[in-house]
Amino acid sequence: MSAYDDLMAFQRETEALGQIAGRLGWDQETMMPRGAAEQRGEEMSAIEGVLHARRTDPRIAEWLEDARPADPVAAAQLRLIRRSHERATKIPAALAQRLARVTSTAQGIWAEARAADKVADFLPTLAEVIALKREEAAALAGDGDLYDALMDDYEPGATAAVIGGMFDRMRPRLVRLRAAVLAAAPVPKLDHHFGEQAQLRFARDLATTFGYDFTRGRLDLAVHPFSSGSGNDARITTRVVETDPFNCFYSTIHEVGHACYELGIDQDYLLTPLGNGVSMGVHESQSRIYENQIGRSPAFTGWMFRQMLDRFGDFGVSGPEEFARIVNRVQPGFIRTEADEVHYNLHVMMRFDLERALIRGDLAVEDLEAAWNDRFAADFGVAVDRPSHGLLQDVHWSCGLFGYFPTYTLGNVYAGCLHLALREAVPGLDDQLARGDTSAATGWLRENVQRHGGLYEPREVITLACGEAPTEEPLLDYLDAKFGALYGL
Amino acid sequence: MSAYDDLMAFQRETEALGQIAGRLGWDQETMMPRGAAEQRGEEMSAIEGVLHARRTDPRIAEWLEDARPADPVAAAQLRLIRRSHERATKIPAALAQRLARVTSTAQGIWAEARAADKVADFLPTLAEVIALKREEAAALAGDGDLYDALMDDYEPGATAAVIGGMFDRMRPRLVRLRAAVLAAAPVPKLDHHFGEQAQLRFARDLATTFGYDFTRGRLDLAVHPFSSGSGNDARITTRVVETDPFNCFYSTIHEVGHACYELGIDQDYLLTPLGNGVSMGVHESQSRIYENQIGRSPAFTGWMFRQMLDRFGDFGVSGPEEFARIVNRVQPGFIRTEADEVHYNLHVMMRFDLERALIRGDLAVEDLEAAWNDRFAADFGVAVDRPSHGLLQDVHWSCGLFGYFPTYTLGNVYAGCLHLALREAVPGLDDQLARGDTSAATGWLRENVQRHGGLYEPREVITLACGEAPTEEPLLDYLDAKFGALYGL
Repeated sequence: MSAYDDLMAFQRETEALGQIAGRLGWDQETMMPRGAAEQRGEEMSAIEGVLHARRTDPRIAEWLEDARPADPVAAAQLRLIRRSHERATKIPAALAQRLARVTSTAQGIWAEARAADKVADFLPTLAEVIALKREEAAALAGDGDLYDALMDDYEPGATAAVIGGMFDRMRPRLVRLRAAVLAAAPVPKLDHHFGEQAQLRFARDLATTFGYDFTRGRLDLAVHPFSSGSGNDARITTRVVETDPFNCFYSTIHEVGHACYELGIDQDYLLTPLGNGVSMGVHESQSRIYENQIGRSPAFTGWMFRQMLDRFGDFGVSGPEEFARIVNRVQPGFIRTEADEVHYNLHVMMRFDLERALIRGDLAVEDLEAAWNDRFAADFGVAVDRPSHGLLQDVHWSCGLFGYFPTYTLGNVYAGCLHLALREAVPGLDDQLARGDTSAATGWLRENVQRHGGLYEPREVITLACGEAPTEEPLLDYLDAKFGALYGL
Repeated sequence: MSAYDDLMAFQRETEALGQIAGRLGWDQETMMPRGAAEQRGEEMSAIEGVLHARRTDPRIAEWLEDARPADPVAAAQLRLIRRSHERATKIPAALAQRLARVTSTAQGIWAEARAADKVADFLPTLAEVIALKREEAAALAGDGDLYDALMDDYEPGATAAVIGGMFDRMRPRLVRLRAAVLAAAPVPKLDHHFGEQAQLRFARDLATTFGYDFTRGRLDLAVHPFSSGSGNDARITTRVVETDPFNCFYSTIHEVGHACYELGIDQDYLLTPLGNGVSMGVHESQSRIYENQIGRSPAFTGWMFRQMLDRFGDFGVSGPEEFARIVNRVQPGFIRTEADEVHYNLHVMMRFDLERALIRGDLAVEDLEAAWNDRFAADFGVAVDRPSHGLLQDVHWSCGLFGYFPTYTLGNVYAGCLHLALREAVPGLDDQLARGDTSAATGWLRENVQRHGGLYEPREVITLACGEAPTEEPLLDYLDAKFGALYGL
């Protein structure tokens, strides 16, 4: 066996153990009995300890030294292994295990604090998580920026300076669009009850419509929908609000986008570093283009409207045009995951600024609630009415996911670029979507983005798919055009 | 830190990883999408590799050498760690991983062969499993018996010679009882449809009635009901047959017995070697006494009859006496897990003889189906009508569980002893059971058996609970008395 083969055999087991850790996380959010939370913390810590020991195994450095890649695929495998090894060796094993234990417990504490609407119940734990993440960032950053060091884990190559610059260019156009839309005639609200079981049946059918393979995944309920796993076991979750079926349907389509990315990766890359989505930003580009540019297009919602009439009877919407406006209704709201396309990125920008300040030490945890509420009032024009509508709404910080939020907007930006290229590549797309046929769209994405897995760098795969480097312009143009038409601006 | 503390800290992580592997097995039987089977095989292999490496870690021998136990609990921990370490170091890592991979895949192949009723689809895989288990047994046995070496993993201290002798003493009395019962007037059958959801609701309520703590467990569906996990996460499964509700109800009570054993162990032993049920035989004693001596007692079935009338309406049974006879109906049947108390041990004895011959090399896999069917016809007086009613009915062999079956009858024997002692300790038990109150019975079992976990050797814990060494007599006396009364013999 060559050094490359030895390394890949070792890595394959590490990838398999990583899948196990991911499945444990899935179990924790969907299946785990409440009383198991503390024990689960120890279990997560133990598997993280194993993974950390493998990622920092000194043999990896030797194998990397000796390995001679035979082709670009092998070279990419080595590049990802080297990055992971260098990153992991910078983090002390004890810190990695403490982080795993604390964040596992923190999720339970967050969920209870959120249910009880009590910020104070969560803040001590959050402070502990932040202290550990700052310690991790310091170990990773060297002389560099703490926040960049954390973000690099989710979006290799991205920096807060570049992201911040892009956000600054986007904000004025989003604010202008938002003001114009909110000044226009308001869109009516749904006033109907949609049963949980019927919603879940349609959610399953929507997942199939978007090409989700239920023989390699499953759909369950979770407080905060997520997708989990890769290779041939990529699972999705959703939630049900009986007065707002679009919460369930678009959460499902969103997670289907994530899962289809994982399931669409070249099977030759199974259980290798290339066998995972390349970054959170590219991941989010898939979930968002499925959800928004395809799933909320007036062509597709026309099909969806007829489906819903069949399934739920008359639910008080006059026709497909009104239905498209309701699906795309713009209104200020507290919850990021329920936000419309116009507001969504404003939610993200706010979290980006707050968490950057927390990590850099410019904002104390005790001041976070006030900072959140002030910024929210300024950006959205309404006061946060309760913590579960404010800083307790997202699971991310309890999991230690700092530097993750900006990848949501980066994903939207990438989705904007991909959508422009997709429309050029598939001229009759709307006719297909109007028949509930997403296969040309999802097929183009699988061929141009998903199948590559980690073969290219994040910006590179978008550039290759689109024929030019990504910018925020296509997304902003798309939003102006779409909401201009829907609101008659 | 002392050597003992170092060892226990290391062991605690191993226990946590063992819990993870168990949860992965649970997921495979209840939640995993079909297309993930092959990938799951690699995942199981990877975690088994980690566990094997830890169990054979050379530091364990050093720590064991230096550790000075401070009390009997510490001494018991060391005894169990030493046994596990000695056992594990005898099995080569490559063999352990191959076994994990092959048995993981074999379960899927078994399930498909069973569904298709095709023995030939399963035999090549079974042959592979047996070859690997023989290899494992040879590594473990030294000069000793291959089958004993495998059985020792499930029932430390048991030997085929002793078990076989006991089975020989039991068989004539069981055969005599069986003949007498089958010659008596037959008991009517249920002829009613019991909806799946209502069955599952009652199954949940029965679990609670027997003290199962749903904040530390959950109930799901599985083809072959099982329980899984320990500490504060012990899950159970059941299955539903709409014409035979007792299948669901008594599977549930049985698995509740297993899970309550794990959940009842002293919390001080959490994630330590003592924090697991001590053997499969003692485990089965708990599941069987919950299911049979308590759950199928005429006192308890009287309460159950009224519950079922409330939940399912009139289902054609005249009164509690007829209900007790139906719940305890004795009839020859193909399926072990559906067998009555009189036949059950005859199923086990047959598997014990067949698997012992397979492992010792006295029976070839190609001859297994004929051997099964001949023995079944001889013992049960009917011919096996299809493989899913014959040798494809049990999951065990596909999982590599050879030497496990005899622990079922050993569990029945222990349950017989415990039941005798319980009746002496709680004189008014039937009055309580007739009110659906199992707390005195389950409390006595928790106090005298469950809480000890692995503190005592299997026979020792039964002896301590009963005040005398276990024999088969109490079980056989109980069966004679119970079925004599029910069938008016």
